[in-house]
Parts: sequence; C-alpha cells; structure tokens
Amino acid sequence: MDFAYSTRARDYIERLNAFMAEHVLPAEPIYRRQLAGGADWTRWNQPPVMEELKAKAKAAGLWNLFLPDVEYGAGLSNVDYAPLAEITGCSLIAPEVFNGNAPDTGNMEVLVKYGSPAQKDAWLKPLLAGEIRSAFCMTEPEVASSDATNMRATARIEGDEVVLDGRKWWSSGIGHPHCKMLIFMGLTDPDADQHRRHSMVLAPLDTPGVKIERMLPVFGSYDAPFGHGEVSFTDVRLPLDAVIGGPGRGFEIAQGRLGPGRIHHCMRVIGAAERALELLCQRATSRIAFGQPLARLGGNPDIVANARMAIEQARLLTLKAAWLMDTVGIKGATSEISQIKVVAPGMAQRVIDAAIQMHGGAGLSDDVELTALLAYARVLRIADGPDEVHRKLIAKLEYQRQQARSGGPT
Amino acid sequence: MDFAYSTRARDYIERLNAFMAEHVLPAEPIYRRQLAGGADWTRWNQPPVMEELKAKAKAAGLWNLFLPDVEYGAGLSNVDYAPLAEITGCSLIAPEVFNGNAPDTGNMEVLVKYGSPAQKDAWLKPLLAGEIRSAFCMTEPEVASSDATNMRATARIEGDEVVLDGRKWWSSGIGHPHCKMLIFMGLTDPDADQHRRHSMVLAPLDTPGVKIERMLPVFGSYDAPFGHGEVSFTDVRLPLDAVIGGPGRGFEIAQGRLGPGRIHHCMRVIGAAERALELLCQRATSRIAFGQPLARLGGNPDIVANARMAIEQARLLTLKAAWLMDTVGIKGATSEISQIKVVAPGMAQRVIDAAIQMHGGAGLSDDVELTALLAYARVLRIADGPDEVHRKLIAKLEYQRQQARSGGPT
Amino acid sequence: MDFAYSTRARDYIERLNAFMAEHVLPAEPIYRRQLAGGADWTRWNQPPVMEELKAKAKAAGLWNLFLPDVEYGAGLSNVDYAPLAEITGCSLIAPEVFNGNAPDTGNMEVLVKYGSPAQKDAWLKPLLAGEIRSAFCMTEPEVASSDATNMRATARIEGDEVVLDGRKWWSSGIGHPHCKMLIFMGLTDPDADQHRRHSMVLAPLDTPGVKIERMLPVFGSYDAPFGHGEVSFTDVRLPLDAVIGGPGRGFEIAQGRLGPGRIHHCMRVIGAAERALELLCQRATSRIAFGQPLARLGGNPDIVANARMAIEQARLLTLKAAWLMDTVGIKGATSEISQIKVVAPGMAQRVIDAAIQMHGGAGLSDDVELTALLAYARVLRIADGPDEVHRKLIAKLEYQRQQARSGGPT
Amino acid sequence: MDFAYSTRARDYIERLNAFMAEHVLPAEPIYRRQLAGGADWTRWNQPPVMEELKAKAKAAGLWNLFLPDVEYGAGLSNVDYAPLAEITGCSLIAPEVFNGNAPDTGNMEVLVKYGSPAQKDAWLKPLLAGEIRSAFCMTEPEVASSDATNMRATARIEGDEVVLDGRKWWSSGIGHPHCKMLIFMGLTDPDADQHRRHSMVLAPLDTPGVKIERMLPVFGSYDAPFGHGEVSFTDVRLPLDAVIGGPGRGFEIAQGRLGPGRIHHCMRVIGAAERALELLCQRATSRIAFGQPLARLGGNPDIVANARMAIEQARLLTLKAAWLMDTVGIKGATSEISQIKVVAPGMAQRVIDAAIQMHGGAGLSDDVELTALLAYARVLRIADGPDEVHRKLIAKLEYQRQQARSGGPT
Repeated sequence: MDFAYSTRARDYIERLNAFMAEHVLPAEPIYRRQLAGGADWTRWNQPPVMEELKAKAKAAGLWNLFLPDVEYGAGLSNVDYAPLAEITGCSLIAPEVFNGNAPDTGNMEVLVKYGSPAQKDAWLKPLLAGEIRSAFCMTEPEVASSDATNMRATARIEGDEVVLDGRKWWSSGIGHPHCKMLIFMGLTDPDADQHRRHSMVLAPLDTPGVKIERMLPVFGSYDAPFGHGEVSFTDVRLPLDAVIGGPGRGFEIAQGRLGPGRIHHCMRVIGAAERALELLCQRATSRIAFGQPLARLGGNPDIVANARMAIEQARLLTLKAAWLMDTVGIKGATSEISQIKVVAPGMAQRVIDAAIQMHGGAGLSDDVELTALLAYARVLRIADGPDEVHRKLIAKLEYQRQQARSGGPT
Repeated sequence: MDFAYSTRARDYIERLNAFMAEHVLPAEPIYRRQLAGGADWTRWNQPPVMEELKAKAKAAGLWNLFLPDVEYGAGLSNVDYAPLAEITGCSLIAPEVFNGNAPDTGNMEVLVKYGSPAQKDAWLKPLLAGEIRSAFCMTEPEVASSDATNMRATARIEGDEVVLDGRKWWSSGIGHPHCKMLIFMGLTDPDADQHRRHSMVLAPLDTPGVKIERMLPVFGSYDAPFGHGEVSFTDVRLPLDAVIGGPGRGFEIAQGRLGPGRIHHCMRVIGAAERALELLCQRATSRIAFGQPLARLGGNPDIVANARMAIEQARLLTLKAAWLMDTVGIKGATSEISQIKVVAPGMAQRVIDAAIQMHGGAGLSDDVELTALLAYARVLRIADGPDEVHRKLIAKLEYQRQQARSGGPT
Repeated sequence: MDFAYSTRARDYIERLNAFMAEHVLPAEPIYRRQLAGGADWTRWNQPPVMEELKAKAKAAGLWNLFLPDVEYGAGLSNVDYAPLAEITGCSLIAPEVFNGNAPDTGNMEVLVKYGSPAQKDAWLKPLLAGEIRSAFCMTEPEVASSDATNMRATARIEGDEVVLDGRKWWSSGIGHPHCKMLIFMGLTDPDADQHRRHSMVLAPLDTPGVKIERMLPVFGSYDAPFGHGEVSFTDVRLPLDAVIGGPGRGFEIAQGRLGPGRIHHCMRVIGAAERALELLCQRATSRIAFGQPLARLGGNPDIVANARMAIEQARLLTLKAAWLMDTVGIKGATSEISQIKVVAPGMAQRVIDAAIQMHGGAGLSDDVELTALLAYARVLRIADGPDEVHRKLIAKLEYQRQQARSGGPT
Repeated sequence: MDFAYSTRARDYIERLNAFMAEHVLPAEPIYRRQLAGGADWTRWNQPPVMEELKAKAKAAGLWNLFLPDVEYGAGLSNVDYAPLAEITGCSLIAPEVFNGNAPDTGNMEVLVKYGSPAQKDAWLKPLLAGEIRSAFCMTEPEVASSDATNMRATARIEGDEVVLDGRKWWSSGIGHPHCKMLIFMGLTDPDADQHRRHSMVLAPLDTPGVKIERMLPVFGSYDAPFGHGEVSFTDVRLPLDAVIGGPGRGFEIAQGRLGPGRIHHCMRVIGAAERALELLCQRATSRIAFGQPLARLGGNPDIVANARMAIEQARLLTLKAAWLMDTVGIKGATSEISQIKVVAPGMAQRVIDAAIQMHGGAGLSDDVELTALLAYARVLRIADGPDEVHRKLIAKLEYQRQQARSGGPT
C-alpha cells in the first residue's frame, strides 16, 4: 500500500502547478474581459488569450495528458492522470488550455477506441490538435434521462444512410465557435436486446437538419463560449459509416466513456473544492470582525476542519476508483465509480457554499470565482447520472456483495 | 392557544391568493420578456406589465399591506401580515406589485416612525403611492459588515450640513429606473457611546457626489431592474434636516427596521420554499423513470416529507416571532427574530435545492423559477446579518436564560 | 392566532413546575436507590418514594391530567395538556407520579371510549386510581411491525370464548409488580375487510397461558420496574366479553389511541430535550478548558443555538398538531401527527447527544440523566411507527394535497 | 500509488478472517453466558472461553500483531496492521483474543519504548504473554480533560520516592480480574515548561492508597469484565524507578502512544461499522413489510449506499494516516491523525444507528450486537480527545498550510 504519487505523476504535478500559477490563473480576468456576446450565443468568440495559453501548454508538453493511449496522448494511467485533472479543476478555464475539457476528452477517447481510420482522420486529428471542438448529444428534454432506456431520439438505418430525428439538450460545448462536430445517440432497433438498441453517430455540426434552438443557462450563466445547447434533429441524413463502431453499439460505447469521464469530473471538482477552501482560508485570516480575524470566530475553525476532512476523503476515494480502473477494469470499479460521483460533487457543493458564506456578499458576486465553481459542482450532481441513480446502484451492488458473503437466502 | 389566522387575515389571504393566480403568476413570463438591458444596468426599464399589475392591486385594495400604521397602510399586525408576505414570496415579481418589496418597505417604516413632516411629504408620499423606489446603503465592501461597528463611511456634521463619504455595496434596488432616493448610514461621532455614533441620512439619488459604480450579480443574475449597487459617496453635502431623527440615531433606527424586515424576508422565503415544493411535487408526479413516476422512486418520498416538515416548522416559528413582536415588542422577540433568520433561509435553500435535483437539468436552467428562488434564499443567509452572527446571539441569550433559571454562578 | 397558553393551562403549568421542582426532581436519586432486582425482573419492586409522590400529586390535584373526559380526568384539551406532558418529560420518573405514563394512559382512554361498564368497573377504576398498572401487547418479534397487517398473533372466537395465541414483545410496563392487566391485539377474521380483521382483548396478567418469557433491555437498561416484555400467549381462553368493543374493531381502536399517545410522547420527548439543553448549558458555563468556559469555545455556541431552534420548532409543530386534534379531529391532523412523530424524537436524539458530548465522559455515565433520556428518544424513533413509515405517509398526503391544488393528472 | 494491501498483510488478513469466523464469532454468546457478576464488579470473572481463544490465537501465530517492534511482536508497519485491527473491531471480544486490546497495547508500546530493563521484566513480559492486564489512569472527573494542562493529580518526587495523589476516572480495564498494573499520569513540577511538567508512573494495582471507588457504566453497560474505573490515589508511594523514562516526560510519552492508538481505535471502529452494515443488509434482505423486503423500500437503499460510501472514505483516510505514520512519522501525520479521530467514530455512530433503525425494536435490545457497537463508537468521540479539540487542531494546521502556500500575512 503506497499513497505516494508515482515519479512520473509527481513530475507532471510540479510542472502543471508551475504552469497554472505562471500562466493560467493570471489569465483568468483577461479571458473574462475578452469574452464577447453576453447572453447572445451567436456572437460568442474564442478569447485570444486561450489560443496563446494552448500554444504554451503544447510547447510545455502539457497537452492531451488525459489520453491513456500512448500513440495519441501522454499515456498516463487513470491514477497518474487524476492529480493532474484535480489541478486543472482549480480554474474553470484550465481544462481547455491543456486540451483536457469535457466533452472533447470523452469524444476523443471514443474515436481512439471505436473510430474507423477515416473517422480518426477527419475528427480525431483536429481534436487532438485542439483545432476544433465537439459536442455530445445524449440527454433529452422530454424524458427523464436518469433512465437511459427512456431515450426517444432515433437513428434509423435506411439503406446506406442513418437518419437522425429528435431533440437533445444539455449538449455542452456546442456553442463554441470552434465546435464542428457532435456525437449523437439515438434508438436504432427497438426490438433488439435492451443494450443493443441504440447507436452513436458522428455528425458535422453543419449537417442539414441540425439546429441549435437555444442555449441553456446554469444559475443564470451560459458558460460562454462553450454553452449548453438545446438541439433539434430533423431528418438529418448521414452516410452509414457515420455510425461509430456500427449500429447498436451505443450503450457499449457510452459505458466505456463514462468511467474515465467520471473520474476526470470528480477530480476536477475536488480541485474546485481545494480552491474554494484556499479562498475561504484567505478570507478568514484577512477579515476582521469583533476584534478578531474570522478564522478564529465561533464555529469557523470547525468549518475549515470539516472541509479539509471531506476533501481528503473524497480525493482518496476517487484515487482508489482510478486505481481500480487501472488494475481491475471498469467493471470491477462499478460501485466505486458511482460512489465518487455521489461523494465528490456533493462535497464540493458544501465546501464552496461554506466559502461563499465566509465571504459574505462578495462570495455571491463575480468578484471571486465561487459562484462559478458552485455551478460546476451543482451541475455534476445531475450530469452523468444524478446522485439518486448512483446511490441505487451502489446499494444493489452492496446487497449482492453481502449476500455472497453470508451465503444466505435473498 | 389558537393556530388559526384571524378573520381579517383569512380575508386578505383569500383575495391575495386569487389575485396571484389570476394576475401575477400569468404575468411572470411577460415581465421577463419585457425586461431590457441585460447586464447593462443603465439600460434597464420598468416592464409595463408591472405598472398594470400595481394599478390592479391598488384597485383591489391589496396595497401597502405591510404597513402596521393605519394612517398610511393596511394597519395589519405582524402576525396578520405574515401569511400575506408568504404568499407574495411565491413569485419574485409579486412584492413590488403590492408595494411590499424590500428595501422600500423598511424605508417607508423608517419614515413613518422617524421622518419629519417635510421628509414624509417629500419621500413617504410617493413611496406609498408606488411612484418612486428607494435604496438603503449600509453594507460596505472593505469591512466585515457582520460586525456593524466596523462601518467606515462617514456622515459628518459640518455647520448646517451633513457630509457623506465612503463606499457602500449591496445597495439593493438602486438600479431601478424609478429609484429616486436612498438612505445612507454613516459614522457621525466616533467618540459617542457605541450605539450613538451613527446617523441615517436621506439623499436624493441625483445628489452630486453619489455615484453608482457598478451592479453586483448574484449567482450571475443582476435582479434587473432592481439591481444590487456598489455606490461611492464623495463629499456629498446635504442640509442637516436630511438626517433622519437627528444625528446619532442610526443604530436605533436600524434596529427598529430590522425586526419587521426580517419577518417579511423570512415569510417570503417560506413562500419561495412552498413554491419549490409545489414544483417538486408536480415534477415528481408527472415524470417517469424505471417505469414509475419519480414520486414513488427510492428516497423521493422522504425528500418530500422532509421538505414538508421543515417548511411547517419554519413557518410556525416565524409566525410566533411575529406574534411576539405584536405582543411583547421587538426586545422580547430578539432571540426568535434571530432564530427565524437562521432557520427560514437555510430551510428554503435545502428545499429549493431538492426541487432542482428532482427536475434534473431543467432545474438548473431558467425554464423553471428554481435557481432564482435559490439565489433569493442564499442571499438571505448573508443579508441582514449572516447565520453565524444570529447563532451567536441566540446562544448568548440562551445562556442568560439558563443562568437566570438555575440561579447559579456564571 | 394566539401563541399563549390558555389561562387554565398556565395555572397547571405553574403548579406542575412547582411540584416537579419541589418533589419530583429531588426524588430521582432516592427512587434509583430504592429500585431492587437489577437485571432480574422477577425481583423488581415499586420504590416506596413513588407511592408517596403519587399521593402528593393526587392531593395537589395533579392527577389524570391527560384524560380529556371530564367525568374521569382533568378534561383538558390536547393543546392544554401538551405543555404539561412536556414538563413531565423532563424526568423519566415523572409521568407515573401524575398517573400519566404510557401505556396506561392509552389503555385508560381505550376503556373510557370503548369499554363496557363491566370492563370499566374492573379495570378503569383501579387504573384511574393508580392502584394497578397495565400493558399493551401489539408488536411481534417475528414480523416487521411497521406494517401492521403483518401481525400473526390470533384472537379467535370459539363459541363464547376468545382464544389468544402468539408471541408479542416490547410490551412495556408488563414487568411492573403492580401490572395486573394487558390489552392484546390479534387476528380474528382473516377474511374480513383489511381493517376489520383484528380484535383487542382485555386479559388479566395471571390468565393461564400468558407467560412473560423475558425482559428486553434498551441500550443495556431494563427500565425497571416497568420493563419491556416478550410475552407468549398459548391457548389463552377468555370470555367473549373480554373483547373490547366487540370483535374486529382492533384497528379502529388502535388508531384512536395513537393520536393522543403520539402527542404525549412527542411533548415528553421535547421536555427531555429541554432538560438536556439545560444540563448542556450548565456544563458549558461551569466547565473551563483552555482558559475559558466551554460555553464560549469554538462551535459550542452554535450547538446551543441549533438546539434552541430545533426545540422551538418541534414544540410549535407538536402544539399545532394537538390543536388540530382538538379542532378538526384526528383525521384532519394525520399528516401533522406523523410529522411530529418524525421530528420530535429525532430532534431530541440530536440535542441529547450534543449534551452528552458537552459533558465528556460524565455524559456517558449514570452521573447525569443523559443516556437514559437518549434511550427514551431513540426508542421513540421506532415505537408507534418508525420514522420511515411516517415519512412515507406524510409524502403520500403531500402528493395528494398538491394534486388537489393543481388539479392536474396523477 | 498502490491501494493493495501488502503480501504480508494479505496473508494475515486471510488467516485472521478465518480465525474470526471459525473461533471468535461463534464464541460471542458463550462468552456472554460465562460472564458473572452483572453490575457488581467485584464479582467479575474471566470467561474460560477467552483463555481458550487466546491459546488458540497464540498457537496460530495471531498474537501481539499490533507491536511494530520485531523483538517483541509481529513487527508490522502501521499500514499493515491497520486492516487486522479493523477485522478485530468486528467483535467486541476479539481484541483481547489476539492480545491487541486497549489500553494494554498502548501500555506495552510505552514499556517497549521507554521502559527500563527492570520495568520490562516485571510488566512487559507478562503483558506480552497475556497473563496480566493493565490500566491507564489519565482522565480526571473534576476538570475538562480535553485540555490536558488542566490535570490536577500529582506525582511529586520526595527523596527517592514518587508520591501519587488525586482522582482519575475512565480508567478502562481496571476492573478485570487479571489487571495487576496501572500507568498513572500526574503533575510533577508545576514550574517546568508546559510539556515537561508531568510524569508517568507504573503502579502495581495493589499498592496501598490505590482504591477503585466504582465502575462507570456507558449507556448502562459496564463492559465487564474490563470496566471503566473511578480510582482514588491517596499518598501512594513508589520507588523513584517507577517513573517511566524519568520525571517530566509524561506528555512526551503520552503523545507517542496516542498516534498508533488512535489508528487502532479508528480501524477497529471501522470494523464495527462494517459489521453493522452487514447486519443491516441481512435484516433488510430478510425482513418483509408492505409485500417487499425492507431492502427495496423507500430510502433504505440510500441508507445502504451512504453507509458504504462513508465507510470506504473513513477507511482510506485512516490507512493514509497509518502510511504517513510509517513514512514521515507522527509529526507529519498530525492533521491526519486528528482527522481520522473525528471522521471514523462519527461515521460509525451514524452507520450503527442506521442499522439499529433497520432492525426496529430488536436493534435496541441485546439480541443483536448493535447497541454495544454503538457504545464503543460513541465513547470514541470523547476518549483520546473529543471531536471538538481535534477539529480545532485540524483548522489550525490548515490555516498554517494555507498561509505558507500563499505567503501572505497572517
């Protein structure tokens, strides 16, 4: 048992921390100032500073760190990448800097694993280069997406074409001016086995019939220039080879992308919680009330201690889940993946909320990053499966494990 | 002991509920569409529908219900007005409709109680008529406002003038195009007794030296067209009779306005929680997952039950605090006022958060009112004294009470 | 709306408080010393001091206060009796002093409402006089009693006899040397309508076939000399007129007794929480660590404030439930009765646990009353329906209420 | 980073689990039946089955596993011993079976590290052999022991004697018929540096002046035959070489023993939580209500999932603390040691309480082990430093760490 990061991870941690301090954190206010368009997503731009940061990150060898496949990326294990994801979680603009932002990372992984050579050429290459962005269209407004079998959008096979119809929302990143492609999930064969009914289809964003209806705000913020789109698909016709891995493999592919994606999200949100705690402590030690720094008043030390304990525990659990992914695979890590998905965002929500409270009114404004971090954490309690669905799965696996142990009747 | 609302309150409740259902709730989307200016507060407007609603409310006799003084308002006791405040809390646009929104209500009460005839003529009359709006400038960016003795802004007496200097923020309502006046609190005599040092001063918004520096967002929303302003005061000179009640009475007046204000806020936020629970139940009973309405799945009934119990308890406590205000006065209700200020917003935050979770992604967007209600509840855990300060006061009073009871040494 | 206790209630409150301070609290250690038998229930005795206290209470007119029927008791409404129940909850020996302890109170109410003249003569009279004690045999070890339809014990009608068979447990009070009678609930007609299947039967404790198998400890304590018995019934034959109200009315009678019983329990447990908070504050203000009384250290004031807010809210909710019972009857108070049953014991458990923590090791010992109070609160989260069942019912009623309001489809 | 137990640890885990299943768990009811004396500690005995189990454990090489010193014990690192401590925590009788129960383990470690050859001969040898038991007398009834500088008992040096005076309580294990020795901590030099004032003294239990005044119950249970004693020391005279390590080293020795001791306690209480979860799941899957196993009803799966997540996190944090102790020493693990001391017992209390609730009335009785496990967890929130003191220390270290990071002013 060894709780130390590997030599390789430690090297990256050091370099990444230095890069964050030198380049990314100082760029945050510049990035915000360069953003254009406000609530009107059609006028969104890519802030120039982001392209500068990307060039620097690439030059520094801090690029595509998330990709475990050594042919395309850094070739890091999940447990080695995890602390790097955490560091990038400290700043909401950081993941893109290192080409490690969702949903591009998941889309790239899907293409690495399931993409045809032609698909890789067309989409994987520019994504790896950070030249284009992409979206993932799965969730639907009309049905409870916590139950994936509810999905209504269709990807029908008609001759040598696949035809997409339906309505998706929370398609994150689809508002980005660089977004050129989306991956669509739809029902292909309602009579097939439950997990063989759906397909994943690659669609250029400008395919006729694809229409971005609007962008959805999260706590009033549009996450420009990425955005979360509501998108309609009307008789969208694509050649059959746009289907990733062939028809009926949608669920299989979705499962494969969710494991690492959840670890990335959880580590990033732990980074967000660390930043919140840092801000909280800075405020607590610098602000005076009733003749003392807030840090020493009443229950404030308890708040700090509780935050520290919660972060440590969530991090260890997430690292263990990553290690299980590396050592026994996604199936053996099923319960742990669901556990971190419940634990980390909920923990981060509480820690960030406490940091807001310590800041008083300033914490609610844009003067500190806290409300943006809170929105990220809050979204994660719903995205990629709400807490409720994960808890249900954890309990089911626990009952099974206990039955196996005690050998008794159900 | 009688838990029934009075006949008079029940009559108002019925009429107010009918008015809300017929006029206010249907106007919510119209109001939002009519809002102009987005993040640019200098372009904010008063949506025409609001003036129509105000006219209707006035005609229906549902106007200035909050004012206990029968000469100026409805003459309702706190406990009779409380359920009406709750009803208006169900919609964020409702309070203004009935001329019952903060901080105008508090400002009007101050003028009723402490205003000179001239001040009443100039400001109380148009405020009562809903022709103008006002702001209240107390909190400061540079110091922890949880400790009011920290206040740095000054209201110096120079000859027959009072001179205001300093910087205030979270001056709510100051962005409203109808806002014409503000009440400023500042240090007048640093050598006086601790609670006799400050003064409250009435200032026309267009007085030279008063400058709105910017509007502060709350969770990314500017609460247009009211806004929360950061305001600088530079050598703002006013005649001495702009000082309300005379110099040195700032704290006394502040205390007097806070009691009823906190009850209003708490009842409104309870109304917000009720609306959230209503939305939660509607979603739970209409949305299907895993073959059943969400209402029946897993721990969802527990969430509903916990919300119901929390709301009931917070309401009863707030009503009791109102009743104490009516029967033994603000001093005898000190602990209870602080108790509701901790209990009600925290309860509402949890209930609204649960409603968001039940809605999935929709809950985070603007498609339902939930994030706006959440922002209201969250702000209240800080505004008018943060939870921490109220808990400290409650404990202090409890220790005193217990000492008195047991007669033992401290 | 009036939060003041009635004149009559206030008079009783004053007298009861005086009696508690003068007679009951000082008698607690005497009572404990006079207890005999330890874990061997067959050697339990009635401590002589209890009979003295009962005589004094009777003489002071503080007797059978719980009985709303003026012919037999004080004739107080639920809302008038509630604060008296709270006062007696401060001491675990107090309820018996005033002849207001469970399950005798419930049994007496059943006899008043459903008993035949002969039953009243035989059992109600000596119970009202405090000459005998009684038990209530409902819960069974073999089945989940949270679902009352699970009940397996039988009360078959054979000719002019009723025959009891089965096994009951948690029959509280059955170990008391004065216990002479029990009320047994069993299945009479499995083919009848679901709520007409069971009967309640009066059985002298010495009826052949009734056997106390053992006493059950609660957190290691046997609650001597009352005890919680496991009792077997083997071919227990009684004349048909032992059936209360006639066969098939078991559920109806059980429902009737549960409403007031739950209010009594909840008010008593609120009294227990008040005593715990009193002890907590005494310890906090008298114990020094790190140079200060515990009362001022760290988060301790928050603990006190949270306890005070929780107690106030639980009390108001319970009083409202009592008032609803008085004004609209048990059916109209269904949700509220379930709400208090969840809220009050859970609140008390938390407050008492906090008081234990403030006492350090002493809190865990018998040197203060806290572990005994905790056991009482903890038991109540299970007895008379576990939290889970009450939450389920509250949610069901809430869904119904919301459906009715919105008029929408289920 | 490696989350797998070492080969050596896995070997012990396997053997220990087998031994527990084959020998210890089946012996639990036998042990209880063989216990004598009830509440009268002077009649307590060592149940014969315990000596049989100890002999078997010794023969199986499962003896003194806790001792990191290879000369005297198994020579396991903290992180290797931790899972073994967890396993023994599943049964309250297990630690003694393997000679790994508190406070003997701590006392043995003290003797190994600080004992003179003569002290080792006299006391370490028989303790290692499991022939005698010992106690540790530190906590005092008159002062808040959370602040160790409060300590009033004295260990004065008079010539060639050390003289003990004072009153101690919560001296665990002192009631055991095999207990022959105690370690006493007292004030030697009030004028010395704050952490050089106290001494630890070895005293045979039968030294004149040592008097066990009584045994303290925990939630009504005396933990026979170990017990928690209140002990008076009156002019207890011992030769100077009874002082461990020489006068003035009490705090130094106490600190050294607390680190490993806290890890042992935390891992054992995690084992207790695991057992509670196992019992909870067995009950949930075997008990039927409303036509379904409890396992599927309402929020019960959430309870199971929450328990599983909490246990996993507490275990990982504790293992990391153990690993830090092994790699950077107790000083580098200060915050983590305090963190686990807050996290693990609190977690266990909640999990065990949930298991009690799932069992209904049975959970409160002695029919399942749950109340005994709960008492163990509850005690730990106070013993070895209450939660409050640990949270304070965690916060202090966090503020320091954050200051160091940001380089800003305090």
